[in-house]
Amino acid sequence: MTPKYKVDHTGCPIAFAAEAFGDKWTLLILREVLLFKKKHFDELLSMREGIASNILASRLKGMEASGLLVKQEDPANGRRVIYSPTEKALDLLPACVELILWASKHDPETGVPADMLARIRRNRAKAIREMRAPFD
Amino acid sequence: MTPKYKVDHTGCPIAFAAEAFGDKWTLLILREVLLFKKKHFDELLSMREGIASNILASRLKGMEASGLLVKQEDPANGRRVIYSPTEKALDLLPACVELILWASKHDPETGVPADMLARIRRNRAKAIREMRAPFD
Repeated sequence: MTPKYKVDHTGCPIAFAAEAFGDKWTLLILREVLLFKKKHFDELLSMREGIASNILASRLKGMEASGLLVKQEDPANGRRVIYSPTEKALDLLPACVELILWASKHDPETGVPADMLARIRRNRAKAIREMRAPFD
Repeated sequence: MTPKYKVDHTGCPIAFAAEAFGDKWTLLILREVLLFKKKHFDELLSMREGIASNILASRLKGMEASGLLVKQEDPANGRRVIYSPTEKALDLLPACVELILWASKHDPETGVPADMLARIRRNRAKAIREMRAPFD
């Protein structure tokens, strides 16, 4: 990723976050990887928001560089690569959960499934552990 | 704000969030308003990351349009305007707190003050209420 502007984060946590994923597509790729468990380039390319393949490639490169994703050979098929979230990316799940709650309150057209919301509201820590489990 | 690309969020909470503030500068402006209680254009312009005034103006307009900020006449000086966070913006404080915890763990140069971290870890809900209190 070639950032349009480089934020010197100077130790500020929000600036650090803005630097790592203050970009719409990066946030959407994180969603695909963390919540929908997507691994392959072509799976990511088919996200419903319609990302262009050059943008996807540049954001994946940026996310590797900032330590959010690791690119590896697919153990099931040596000619393909898979992208896996790092600990640093998985540790964003609590923030994702807060964004889900926020959007469910403020988006009049929210599509957050009611059972997901209920699960989060009942026990947030447990919901996060369950989201994380497939990667552990 | 003229978005570089418009994400059709189709009910997805993360896409809704990406649409509202999937932009570095918007996230930094939110920080200035929510955490540093800045209100005036020139205060925002002096953020340490060095935002250009045309970018600040366009992002403020976008944040008004997406319902994160309200622009009003400054009661202390009728010739100035102030920007205040809406309920929708204040409801992002829990996500901000998660980002602070995340950055304090993953940024080797983190500058998160130790007392702030301790306060959040001791009682997250109380820390959020205290951040919110000046706006209520």
